[in-house]
This record gives sequence, structure tokens and C-alpha cells, in this order.
Amino acid sequence: MGTKLIGIVAPAAPLDAVVAERVRLVAGDMDDGPELLIHPQCFLSDGHFAGDDAARASAFLDVANDPHFHAVWIARGGYGSCRMAERVLSQLNDYAREKIYLGYSDAGFLLAGLYAKGCRVAHGPMPADFARPGGEAAVLRALNWLNTGAASALEPSLGDGRPAAAFNMVVLSHLVGTALEPDLTDHVLMLEEVSEHLYSIDRTMFHLTAQSSLRRVAGIRLGRVSDILANEPAFAESEEEIVQRWCDEAGIPYLGRADIGHDADNKIVPFGLPSAKKP
Amino acid sequence: MGTKLIGIVAPAAPLDAVVAERVRLVAGDMDDGPELLIHPQCFLSDGHFAGDDAARASAFLDVANDPHFHAVWIARGGYGSCRMAERVLSQLNDYAREKIYLGYSDAGFLLAGLYAKGCRVAHGPMPADFARPGGEAAVLRALNWLNTGAASALEPSLGDGRPAAAFNMVVLSHLVGTALEPDLTDHVLMLEEVSEHLYSIDRTMFHLTAQSSLRRVAGIRLGRVSDILANEPAFAESEEEIVQRWCDEAGIPYLGRADIGHDADNKIVPFGLPSAKKP
Repeated sequence: MGTKLIGIVAPAAPLDAVVAERVRLVAGDMDDGPELLIHPQCFLSDGHFAGDDAARASAFLDVANDPHFHAVWIARGGYGSCRMAERVLSQLNDYAREKIYLGYSDAGFLLAGLYAKGCRVAHGPMPADFARPGGEAAVLRALNWLNTGAASALEPSLGDGRPAAAFNMVVLSHLVGTALEPDLTDHVLMLEEVSEHLYSIDRTMFHLTAQSSLRRVAGIRLGRVSDILANEPAFAESEEEIVQRWCDEAGIPYLGRADIGHDADNKIVPFGLPSAKKP
Repeated sequence: MGTKLIGIVAPAAPLDAVVAERVRLVAGDMDDGPELLIHPQCFLSDGHFAGDDAARASAFLDVANDPHFHAVWIARGGYGSCRMAERVLSQLNDYAREKIYLGYSDAGFLLAGLYAKGCRVAHGPMPADFARPGGEAAVLRALNWLNTGAASALEPSLGDGRPAAAFNMVVLSHLVGTALEPDLTDHVLMLEEVSEHLYSIDRTMFHLTAQSSLRRVAGIRLGRVSDILANEPAFAESEEEIVQRWCDEAGIPYLGRADIGHDADNKIVPFGLPSAKKP
């Protein structure tokens, strides 16, 4: 079996060039590691974005529609995937359905739409995570999983026979009711968040748990909620109490914590049922 | 005709007691002004909220379901109405449908659900606006309109024969797809925002304009977007360019600006068609 080729594209914000080189070195040091193609679009800059909407969509399709690539690895979050997602989804070819797509945070807009189209997607670390404390471990986890499907990379509650999905709360809140929303009926839905006020998390959980579509999930697991912004006055509940209360009101089983978040420990959550075919 | 009685309740954050007294004095100085009953619940404090969810719902129902009151005037925004809205809506009596409800910002959760239930609601100034620069004018505008239906208080684009509605963008974004969402088919939808980043406004406008329910509006007008938080790097478009672009992509007519916002100039937008029956 030949070396696997992984394409890195940036549908939101640009990737730091030094981080990109460090990630390439990490992959190069692996035994039988994959080969990385870092699309030059990752380094474009257009205001908030890594190139304009057309450039980001075009780069994504370069990799997604090319049979030489085993996987599309999303470089980083930020904001911008929702601006090019429908353009991408309308132009995918059959090769696009044979590969795996990995990312999280803002990339959730794309993961959602790709999953709705029948593609194989997973929530997990991105190249830009290299810059986090301990981030090399996150990058290695992603590379190992993309390369061999290493089970150690997976979120530990997976494998109970139920399909799964994972999202940043705010991202999922902004894609429900749009053409990007996948059918998550009977899925275990894992949610994580970063840099929000607790009142805002409460409001987002109201919105999510009040959707009739999401009331059909098998249950919700809460990942890490990090860098919570100061609430004034203090919010009376913790993030887990907030999520449990809204789940209770909506009749959605609360299933406990999930090992995902905006951090180096972020484990991988393939959407749907674990496939017999490894990544 | 006797003096009109207006009840003030606080479904989100508490009302400052000094502001409450100043608003009472403003009403007292009006010729044939209304009488205000400031529900003691307005001054409760429970963490983030003006009393717990049950206390806020109960106070709201005290006024809404009492035939002596002509109007329910929401004291202020903050956050919390979505936590008690369904409790309120399930317990309204026939008297509740005969009065008018006025507020904006977080109160939009209640206005939405009340309008969906056939109540008469309006987006406009609240008692807490007294504390803004020039805020006495906003309070007087609201009191005059509640008391006599003064046409000078109304948003100037109204009266073109089409029904209208107005919301804070983030609030509407968090209530679409929930039981609180009213049918806004063929309505002119006015949107305003405060204290958000432009990238976040872009994301919210994606979410709103991608809803099939909101693609049925007659068009969108943009109110003021104030206190925009610094975007890093700078966002390439203005708030109006953002709204126009998403409207274009969704096939929703963009109708220009609206005279509403988180400020003392905030004009009143009664939902639906102007009623033959004045407030």
C-alpha cells in the first residue's frame, strides 16, 4: 500500500506558515507517515479570511474532488466556512465521497453539510492546533488516525452501537434550519464550546434543545467548555448544569461528558457509525 | 375614558430602582398620562435574573392576565426571557389577548411567542432606556404611544400596507426553529444589533437568511448596528453590505434602513398590520 496523501485547505482563516512547516515535520518523522500537501490557499489573506469565498471554495474542491487524496484536513477554524460551504457542496464529484474530512470549530459548517451529502467526516484536531500548549500530541493524534484509523485517537464513549456527531455549540446553533443541517436522528450529539459567557451558552442551549430536529437525537454529551468569559453578575449554574437542565426540559437524555474541546486533548469523533472501512 | 394602567415587569434582568422612579415621574408629568404599576418583581435579584424563572413568569402573568391593565411594558433586556416564555405562553387567558406588549432586545423572545399566539406586540423603547443619553425622549415616546397610539412614535417606513416585525438579530437567530417563532410570511422584517463583531453579524445573517421560514418575508430592513466590537483583522464589509449580500444570496429583498436600534431614537414597530384599534 502506498503512502497516503492528505490535503490541507483553509476554508476560514489563514494558516501560519511556521505552524504549517512544523506540522509537515511531525508527519515526516512518523514511521510510514502520510504525505501532506498544504494547499497554497492556506496562506492567502483577504481581510478576515484565507482568500475570498471563491478562492477558499476552489481550493477545497481541488483536494476534495481529486482521487489522489486520501483525506481533506481542515487547517484551522476562525470564521468563514459557512460563506463557501454551499458552493463546495454543489460541486463535489464521486471522488469526494470516497475520502475523509477532518476538522472542528468553524469547520463544523462544512462537516455538517458534507455529512448531510453522505460524505465521511470527523470532528477532531487540525494543523493549527500545533500552536496550542501540548499541541503536537493533537496533531499526531489526527495524523495517526487519518493514516491508520488508530482506535486510540477516538473519543472513548464511541462504539456503543449508536451513531455519533460532534459540534461546537455556537456553530451548530447557526446551522440548524439551514441547508447544511444533517439528520442527527438517533445520534449521540457531542457539544463543546470556548470563549463564551455562561448566559450565552444558556441561550444557545435553549435554541438547540428547542429544535424539533435535535429533539430526535439519542442524547447529548458535553465536551469541554473552556475559557469561559466572566459573567456579571455571576451565573448561578455551571456549564454542565445548564446543559442538563435544557436537556431535561426538552426530553433529550443527557449522557455525561465527552472528551472533546478546544484543546490538545480533543479526541476524534467520526460522524455516524464506525465504518468497517478504516480512514 | 379613564386613565390607562400600564404594568411594568422584568422577564430578564432587574430594573434599577432610581430609573423606575424617574420613569414614574415622567409619566406623572404627562397631560392625561397613564398610570404605571411597577411590579415589585422588577427589583428581585437572582444571579443573572430579576428573580428565578418561576417568579418572572408569575409576575408577567399577574399583569398579562389582569383585565385592569391596558399594556405590559417590559422593563429592560439583558438575558432571560427565553427561560420563562413557554411557561407564560401556556397560561395566558383571554384578557392577555386584549392588551399590548412593548419591549425589544431580549424581550424579542416574548414578543415572538406572544405574536405567534395572536397577541398584539410592538418593538420599542423600555423603561431602562431612561438611563441612556437622551433616554427620557425614548421613554416619553413609548408612554405616548401606549397611551394614545401617537403616530409620531412609529418607525417611519411603516404604513406601506405590509405587515411588519422587528427583532434584535441575535435574539431572532436564537428563536428560529423553536416554538416561539411566529409566521413572518410577507412581513417587512426589521433587524438591529448592538455590541457584536462584524464576523458574528455575518454568521448570524447567514443563519437567518438560510431559514426557509424567513425566506418568505417581504423583505429585510436594517436598523442601527451600534457599538460594533473591533474585528481583527478588519472585516472588509460594513454591516449594511453584509446584510445586503446575504439577502441577495437568499433571494430576500433588501429594503434599506430602519429607524430602530439600541438607542434613544429607537422608534416603535407594532407587529403585523397597523390595527384600526389604537393601543
